[in-house]
Amino acid sequence: MTDQPADQWINETLYPDWGQRFRVTRELARVTSPFQEIVVFESESHGGVLVLDGAIQITERDEFVYQEMLAHVPLLSHPLAKNVLIIGAGDGGVLRRVLQHRTVEKAVMVEIDGAVIALSKRFLPSIAGDAWDDSRAEVIVGDGIDYVARAGAESFDVIIVDSTDPIGVGEALFTDAFYADCARILSPDGLIVNQCGVPFMQADELRETSLRRAKFFPHVSAYVAAVPTYVGGFMTLGVAAKGGVPGAVPVETVRARAGRAGILGTTRYWTPEIHVGSFNLPPYIAEALPVGG
Amino acid sequence: MTDQPADQWINETLYPDWGQRFRVTRELARVTSPFQEIVVFESESHGGVLVLDGAIQITERDEFVYQEMLAHVPLLSHPLAKNVLIIGAGDGGVLRRVLQHRTVEKAVMVEIDGAVIALSKRFLPSIAGDAWDDSRAEVIVGDGIDYVARAGAESFDVIIVDSTDPIGVGEALFTDAFYADCARILSPDGLIVNQCGVPFMQADELRETSLRRAKFFPHVSAYVAAVPTYVGGFMTLGVAAKGGVPGAVPVETVRARAGRAGILGTTRYWTPEIHVGSFNLPPYIAEALPVGG
Repeated sequence: MTDQPADQWINETLYPDWGQRFRVTRELARVTSPFQEIVVFESESHGGVLVLDGAIQITERDEFVYQEMLAHVPLLSHPLAKNVLIIGAGDGGVLRRVLQHRTVEKAVMVEIDGAVIALSKRFLPSIAGDAWDDSRAEVIVGDGIDYVARAGAESFDVIIVDSTDPIGVGEALFTDAFYADCARILSPDGLIVNQCGVPFMQADELRETSLRRAKFFPHVSAYVAAVPTYVGGFMTLGVAAKGGVPGAVPVETVRARAGRAGILGTTRYWTPEIHVGSFNLPPYIAEALPVGG
Repeated sequence: MTDQPADQWINETLYPDWGQRFRVTRELARVTSPFQEIVVFESESHGGVLVLDGAIQITERDEFVYQEMLAHVPLLSHPLAKNVLIIGAGDGGVLRRVLQHRTVEKAVMVEIDGAVIALSKRFLPSIAGDAWDDSRAEVIVGDGIDYVARAGAESFDVIIVDSTDPIGVGEALFTDAFYADCARILSPDGLIVNQCGVPFMQADELRETSLRRAKFFPHVSAYVAAVPTYVGGFMTLGVAAKGGVPGAVPVETVRARAGRAGILGTTRYWTPEIHVGSFNLPPYIAEALPVGG
């Protein structure tokens, strides 16, 4: 832990010509793991912030937007999700939101970089809360690609991929082999969701991963969320389903499922109406989604 | 026009501890008008960018999001908007979107700072297109407060306030006197929309202006738009109506009105579904809207 001069700023380096910057109250950690450079710092505006290879991953103040939409939308698009696989998400925030569903019986989380988990537990404990100690959670430090290659057929109802962008360590989570395994290990009504970047800045990411998922799933779609620190307007979350069309679940069904799961009234971004509406894509995003249904 | 070194960045100074930054290809203008400091620059990532007193106002690349939502939502929430008053919006982008509606008979635009109009015409001509020359347009360089104080009763169907935040030159557009005059000059089904900032960073702005509008209008509401360069998640657009509830117009009515106006198929962000869905506020925003209806 190092003290910083009062007026130090950290610039995000995700895009070459544009980005966001934070005034750093205190740098909490700067670690080079076998996989990536990890920085955790404290900011006046956003609380604790986690940065991987120069890209903002999560801040304590706005994490609820991303986590709620990444967890609640797929779980409540499924008729009754009991077994959930989370790949990545080392900060534990997705695990916490998944375990909020009392209908979930088991949540397996596979994060490749144990240092992200350790630093999140130490410096960003509010993000996971007590999810690490839930008896339904199994946390594995390991390779998600290997895990899905070895997992049994139809062993999960929902797979949530909370990866970095498809460069560096996250790249292998955007391949044919990975999606083929995911399709195999999902139950008949199963679905997979993964973050597909901010189309205003990264339109190819949604386009390319949607085409790839369409090889292995009959229904490929996307929904949007306005995450404050994923700057550039809506980010997209890509969804691919073996069974029903995720965006076609009526609002009253979503509300009933959320009531059964114990989610209603616990959220700050997600609502049944926002869930359903998030599948209505602005034309500038829809044009980057070459497949429908 | 001055040439810049290749690696110059401009930091937005809207918030003290967080902001966005752009790599500047070329600074096109830097003018201190009687009202504010105006900077126009060219960026690799966003094309031309207009900055007032350090706050990003509009970029050529993402202006469509803000302009479409600021113009089309109020015009199509009204049964048949023929006379439209625009206050601010010196770049001409709102004027262009309003005049796209072939049902509009007259659009009066009142911008206090003639330098913003002149610089936009010269350096950002794509934003207004040929709207300046439309025979239905009346462009006045003057004070919007004075204009609404002198305008006749029930002379406009829609008022669009495209102001800066309620500090500096924009402050008088957020007062009781201004809203009282707006209510007086609106027709019985009339409504007013104004930008209410990004609640994640500026929650008080939506709260305070909504309470103020509720003194003069029976229906006060808000809708959201994910504007890439108004960083911080959703921005809100506050709406206050003398007649029907703006957020309660069914999607098929919105679509029919848009068809009649000639708007369908011309947009990159707005659609009838997004129009209707934008009134569904995430709880973290709804809690900053103390009045309903």
